[in-house]
Amino acid sequence: MTRQLILDLDTGIDDALALAYALADERAHLLAVTGTYGNVVVDEGVRNSLALTELLGAPDVPVVAGPGHALARDGFEVAEISAFIHGRNGIGDVDIPDAQRGREEGSAVDFLIDAVKTYGEDLVYVPTGPMTTVACALRRAPEIAEKIGAIVCMGGALTVRGNVTPYSEANISQDPEAAHILFTSGAPVTMIGLDVTLQTLLTKEHTRRWREAGTDRARALADMTDYYIRAYETTAPKLGGCGLHDPLAVAVALDPSLVTTVDVPLAVDCEGVTRGRTIGDPDRLAEAGGRVKVAVGVDKERFVADFNDHIERIVAEGRAV
Amino acid sequence: MTRQLILDLDTGIDDALALAYALADERAHLLAVTGTYGNVVVDEGVRNSLALTELLGAPDVPVVAGPGHALARDGFEVAEISAFIHGRNGIGDVDIPDAQRGREEGSAVDFLIDAVKTYGEDLVYVPTGPMTTVACALRRAPEIAEKIGAIVCMGGALTVRGNVTPYSEANISQDPEAAHILFTSGAPVTMIGLDVTLQTLLTKEHTRRWREAGTDRARALADMTDYYIRAYETTAPKLGGCGLHDPLAVAVALDPSLVTTVDVPLAVDCEGVTRGRTIGDPDRLAEAGGRVKVAVGVDKERFVADFNDHIERIVAEGRAV
Repeated sequence: MTRQLILDLDTGIDDALALAYALADERAHLLAVTGTYGNVVVDEGVRNSLALTELLGAPDVPVVAGPGHALARDGFEVAEISAFIHGRNGIGDVDIPDAQRGREEGSAVDFLIDAVKTYGEDLVYVPTGPMTTVACALRRAPEIAEKIGAIVCMGGALTVRGNVTPYSEANISQDPEAAHILFTSGAPVTMIGLDVTLQTLLTKEHTRRWREAGTDRARALADMTDYYIRAYETTAPKLGGCGLHDPLAVAVALDPSLVTTVDVPLAVDCEGVTRGRTIGDPDRLAEAGGRVKVAVGVDKERFVADFNDHIERIVAEGRAV
Repeated sequence: MTRQLILDLDTGIDDALALAYALADERAHLLAVTGTYGNVVVDEGVRNSLALTELLGAPDVPVVAGPGHALARDGFEVAEISAFIHGRNGIGDVDIPDAQRGREEGSAVDFLIDAVKTYGEDLVYVPTGPMTTVACALRRAPEIAEKIGAIVCMGGALTVRGNVTPYSEANISQDPEAAHILFTSGAPVTMIGLDVTLQTLLTKEHTRRWREAGTDRARALADMTDYYIRAYETTAPKLGGCGLHDPLAVAVALDPSLVTTVDVPLAVDCEGVTRGRTIGDPDRLAEAGGRVKVAVGVDKERFVADFNDHIERIVAEGRAV
């Protein structure tokens, strides 16, 4: 049957691409977008998610806001580097009209708990920002760890350096305690980290082809992605493109065979200089259970081609179903 | 055909067990032991290797000394923690008579280069201490990287913390530059790090069974291993035994199916606080070649049983062939 998908986005250019990918795919039903902070503040991310769903022909997808800051903090400000990579408005300073509709009432935390109760094994949750919302849900209703179908998160770095510090990737760094709660919850988690996302590169050759559709959708997605690629030319000049971080997490949620994984008793360092590091817990090495599937290999040609096909289709035709 | 094996040991209790395992195995011919520094100074390690080979019935195995300190240093002193774990004499303060014979003339570096020229694909080299000797050989004769059959090293930590710092494992920490040279040489390297060796545990129940053979060999190996297990009770009380670091590397050299590996464009941080960290190089993530097979999973029941069988056999009967 069709999998029910919740994307938890801090929207964000690659979040926008992840959303477009999900809407272009017939294998999934996008139950909702929940909003978190990170690339932008939560209200800006929610605005972008509402605007993008309408632009892409999906005004029926509910958008629900989650917590606006990390568990151990009482506020959140967008980092300079985030604004540099994603633009002041989060979507490459591209102007997309506000949505006609507003966000749903209530909290993303409750929405997630209720969705697990309703859909159970059929629900796949994809957090592509800090893991704060799912951590709050796991604290409030620990039983969802056993009931949810899968959680595929973008974040972390196990076999490569982090991108915030040598140990810490941005999404984990925003809320290490939340990520630790998720990884040690016993939930069926797959971690899509820098280990694989930095292998999946998009170039201006791709965005040039999107533009050929001639639609507003094509222009908006191509313009914001070009902004993102330009930022990468500064921050990672050797890479030769931009990393498809969040879209890869969505793609793996729909087709786990895109990556190879290793089972690790994963934990997050919450103290000291290594705060935010995703690393195996030596005290649990001998235990078989409680492991996170960490992606260490990716069929990058297949994924990038599949991703590009999805975007070409949605910019030309609008959402899939 | 029988594989030709060179063990590069800083002998060391688990080095002694690795040596015993190799001598008990009929699949390999132990061409030589080369000596390095680490658990002990190089002269002490060479003495122990000579004494142990004779104790175990292998007085014909040549022992050759390698460099006595790291590439970037001009001397070496045994760390307090090494003396605590391995004893002042490196073999748990167990008294084993000096060998009748002495070390071979010449350097382990030349010995290794010559052995690659002679045996090529049939040669497997297993460094279980700092990688200084093989790094010197690769500098002097880079072509051996393509000619050697395999290099299976004990060292590093990719998916778990280090044991010297949160980033660095002891063998890599001793000589990060040497390990970096090895991992980026293009040689067919398998890294057996803390990721897997901390999963393969030996207990006093094992050493009790060895003692039943009633031989000097049994007493010596059991006494030194009990010393090692006692040290682990202090340094890693949660583990419930001692890690079979060096023996696992030898076992994988003879049977790669004992571990599951991931191919990583591995590098070693040589600067800053992460000096000694084994980590993937993001600039080489997109390249297919030049990867190290990093062991991330191990069939621990099969290995520990196989290891114990080897030791029970050699303490009862002496070397295999």
